[in-house]
Amino acid sequence: MTNPRAAMLIIGDEILSGRTREGNLAYLAAELGKIGIVVAEARIVADDHDAIIAALNALRGSIDHVFTSGGIGPTHDDITADAVAAAFGVAIDVREDARAILQAHCDRRGVELNAARLRMARIPDGARLIDNPVSSAPGFTIGNVHVMAGVPSIFQAMVASVLPGLAGGPPLLSQSLEVLRPEGAIAAEFGALAADFPDLSMGSYPFQRDGVAGTNLVVRGTDGARIDAAMVRLCALFGTRG
Amino acid sequence: MTNPRAAMLIIGDEILSGRTREGNLAYLAAELGKIGIVVAEARIVADDHDAIIAALNALRGSIDHVFTSGGIGPTHDDITADAVAAAFGVAIDVREDARAILQAHCDRRGVELNAARLRMARIPDGARLIDNPVSSAPGFTIGNVHVMAGVPSIFQAMVASVLPGLAGGPPLLSQSLEVLRPEGAIAAEFGALAADFPDLSMGSYPFQRDGVAGTNLVVRGTDGARIDAAMVRLCALFGTRG
Repeated sequence: MTNPRAAMLIIGDEILSGRTREGNLAYLAAELGKIGIVVAEARIVADDHDAIIAALNALRGSIDHVFTSGGIGPTHDDITADAVAAAFGVAIDVREDARAILQAHCDRRGVELNAARLRMARIPDGARLIDNPVSSAPGFTIGNVHVMAGVPSIFQAMVASVLPGLAGGPPLLSQSLEVLRPEGAIAAEFGALAADFPDLSMGSYPFQRDGVAGTNLVVRGTDGARIDAAMVRLCALFGTRG
Repeated sequence: MTNPRAAMLIIGDEILSGRTREGNLAYLAAELGKIGIVVAEARIVADDHDAIIAALNALRGSIDHVFTSGGIGPTHDDITADAVAAAFGVAIDVREDARAILQAHCDRRGVELNAARLRMARIPDGARLIDNPVSSAPGFTIGNVHVMAGVPSIFQAMVASVLPGLAGGPPLLSQSLEVLRPEGAIAAEFGALAADFPDLSMGSYPFQRDGVAGTNLVVRGTDGARIDAAMVRLCALFGTRG
């Protein structure tokens, strides 16, 4: 595998409690896949200083890029920036370029840059700002860690700001075949075929629809010709292409 | 915090790739909350033997209960049971009680208990089976780890099989208030109020609707009277109860 590896660190009690459904991972994985970066792991931790630091340090040491979401707003439970600074062992304070961005945003909207909003200008020493065209309050990159908002529209805008600066690899490609047979009926042949293509990743995902047990077969890799060859064999085994 | 702590380990390339949206965590967190078990962390790893072992060993040593989802089906990419056995350093093989369950299921449906389906009877030494009333193939509990299927209907049935055997704590309660003001406008007062209730957890979650910036304020804890008291103060500060 020559593709760089990424991890996502999702920060927020509201995800762990089940109250809010996480949706940013799927978006990030799809966007990174286009530039050939594999999401190898994701972790979800609470709004807890020590938990954020431990997860961040475990991930950033073993993986090429870490993307965080959540906890960079103006309220007391937004503690991500301070935890990231602590993880890197650097100081954090209000930075003038971030303050200027927020001041201009508040001026345009006719609201006060109060102490709570000013918290969003706290940036760890040595970080680069990540542009936020949606709501101005910037994210930041420090080392191999990209710190972003959890609100999906802002998360997506920040991903768009970060991606052009990343070194990727060959794009991750996939094709799938829907088979109206249960997994247990096709597993042997599917496994034998997968063994013939050790350079590809093949997965099977069962589903139930209208009382019929079916299976989605997914072939992933970076060599389109090899994926095509595998799909031809899959279709010959299990019927027409879905 | 007197509540037991749980973690979820989600296993599957299809979640990490963004192809399939994960939904079991929210269900598990809600069910565990009712019996007073807090989900403190979740991890998502690929269908990778070493990655599963590393995550499982990190979680099971530091937390009361670990729930896994995914990777216990009949196909070659279903490697969870073997990885769990390796994590615990125990042997794994087809077990007679699990084989009998699968045989009866296959007999009822008139299908063959082939080698692929028999893989689902591989159970690590020392584990207890988890009942699967949906599709028969059992999960299992070993130590403080509960190994369950990823298909939501089966996952939910297995959660129902496991929960009665767990020692919980005081149920986790929450109330919320929707405020049609942006986070930055209410953060100072909300933070001051949260500081008055150190026994509760208070979070704020911004949203946009019809061009209006609003915030959901959520109060969590185990003492209903304290949560009520906090909500009375929140409503006095920010308007009527949502």
